Amino acid sequence: MIISSVKEIFVPKSKVFYSLFEEVAVTANNMSKLLLAFVEEESEVTRNMLLQQIEDAEHKNDRTTYTIFINLSKYFITPFDREDIHYLAKSLDDISDNIYASARKMHVYKIFPASDKGIQKMAGLIQVSTLHVLEAVMELRNMKNLTSIKEAIFQINTSENKADELFDLLTDELFNTVHDIKEIIRKKDIYQSLEMATDKCEDAANAIESIIVKYS
Amino acid sequence: MIISSVKEIFVPKSKVFYSLFEEVAVTANNMSKLLLAFVEEESEVTRNMLLQQIEDAEHKNDRTTYTIFINLSKYFITPFDREDIHYLAKSLDDISDNIYASARKMHVYKIFPASDKGIQKMAGLIQVSTLHVLEAVMELRNMKNLTSIKEAIFQINTSENKADELFDLLTDELFNTVHDIKEIIRKKDIYQSLEMATDKCEDAANAIESIIVKYS
Amino acid sequence: MIISSVKEIFVPKSKVFYSLFEEVAVTANNMSKLLLAFVEEESEVTRNMLLQQIEDAEHKNDRTTYTIFINLSKYFITPFDREDIHYLAKSLDDISDNIYASARKMHVYKIFPASDKGIQKMAGLIQVSTLHVLEAVMELRNMKNLTSIKEAIFQINTSENKADELFDLLTDELFNTVHDIKEIIRKKDIYQSLEMATDKCEDAANAIESIIVKYS
Repeated sequence: MIISSVKEIFVPKSKVFYSLFEEVAVTANNMSKLLLAFVEEESEVTRNMLLQQIEDAEHKNDRTTYTIFINLSKYFITPFDREDIHYLAKSLDDISDNIYASARKMHVYKIFPASDKGIQKMAGLIQVSTLHVLEAVMELRNMKNLTSIKEAIFQINTSENKADELFDLLTDELFNTVHDIKEIIRKKDIYQSLEMATDKCEDAANAIESIIVKYS
Repeated sequence: MIISSVKEIFVPKSKVFYSLFEEVAVTANNMSKLLLAFVEEESEVTRNMLLQQIEDAEHKNDRTTYTIFINLSKYFITPFDREDIHYLAKSLDDISDNIYASARKMHVYKIFPASDKGIQKMAGLIQVSTLHVLEAVMELRNMKNLTSIKEAIFQINTSENKADELFDLLTDELFNTVHDIKEIIRKKDIYQSLEMATDKCEDAANAIESIIVKYS
Repeated sequence: MIISSVKEIFVPKSKVFYSLFEEVAVTANNMSKLLLAFVEEESEVTRNMLLQQIEDAEHKNDRTTYTIFINLSKYFITPFDREDIHYLAKSLDDISDNIYASARKMHVYKIFPASDKGIQKMAGLIQVSTLHVLEAVMELRNMKNLTSIKEAIFQINTSENKADELFDLLTDELFNTVHDIKEIIRKKDIYQSLEMATDKCEDAANAIESIIVKYS
């Protein structure tokens, strides 16, 4: 899992981090697409298959994040501040964790998301957020297109605000319209997990903002 | 948002951090006073106005905390350990986040706090804690009055213990006296959010203790 | 609480960290045994006594963790990466916090654990996990027995996966078989707190893995 000695000599150290971050951001974005398919899927068999794919992707991102942390300890000269790299890696990993946790909770709680417009809207916001996170991460390599990074950060923050408002609306609706308390408990849990994924996209945006403020 | 170049030259670097921390601690303490007014207020119109002020203050502290982190990356010579500054800034920001989250939850859940002595007592403990956090932060600038910092830390820890006990008492009461399960879920959520604010004051106290142990 | 000047001179600095980590890991493992006794105990008087012992042990670990952080700031030459030490200390402290929080919640919620096989199984997994954490920490001092550290890490990860699956199973059972919603809320809260303890053991395993990858 660790960059080999030969590679260390020939690949400029900073490139290692760009590639690893891009890999994690691509996977997180793929996971958000799988989540969206999962919450819109009518067939349980297909949903279970999608859940398995989400779980596999989460494990993949765990391993890549671990590689980032190991490399961070080995290389004293890194392209960005150590704190920023650590914070960005942690945030990207947390996005994946929360996407997987959300899908798993729906599975365990036997919530049928295909009939829940609120859950689908929330998954849609996560998909938009992770796409903008991916856009911003892809631009870190050359730092040529600062306007595009800033626009992506703005869009991530906007999605997070929308997710906050949607969460309040859905929770309010839940308490006012649903009578089955067990369903209230289960759905509130799922809404929180989904909303947390957009919070973690905002954390990633903050880390990226901190990087571009200093290095541009 | 970043300290300008001119200021960087003329203001000793350490002063930047003192001012920023004082600003965040003052705002957090103001937020706790607004929260106390909010939970005692009978009028919904006034409560909504207070909630808006709490939200504005939270955004203000977000920006100041961001400035602390940016300055932390720019200045290699800082008055304290980088870890301590980071931890103190994070804790102070978390205090603000939890005060705002508590008020927002009461609003979304349509909980009428003016008739809830438990919520008011918890808000009172937050107000006491943030006042002592502010006292301790104000003393960091000259480090002359260590006894007064230690006394403030002791008071913060005492308030946190009281908040723990109050939380257990209120939760117990909730389960034993309230029959509306929706109300139990909503109030438990609010109690947790309020209690978390005093936990974060304790985190700030730990950060300050770590600073004075090393620099005095 | 801080290592005295005399000791600083005569004890090689790295030894300080080994001893402190061993102390915390031993206490965390003792706490897990007390928790297991607590959840199997029929007598309320004995349970209260065990809860007091768990609380005392948690406070002890708080203080030792604090000593680790203070030493981390004072000693620039440490045996391992600062980040790894910080992360390992935080994880071990979080294990203790979650064990204590679990026992306290059972007490406050007046849950009678001696009749709950699920809670007992979860406490058993925590006990297994903390034992393997202790084994791994004890090997850090000489780094001679890497196979044994890797085996301990593997066992911790296995227990965490078992705890995840058990949590899903228990939550599912809770919603399907229990009709008293208050009991569902209380038990779900306790299951989460117990499961979190095994998560924190996994965090400790990750920190240890990060250490042995770099220093062996």
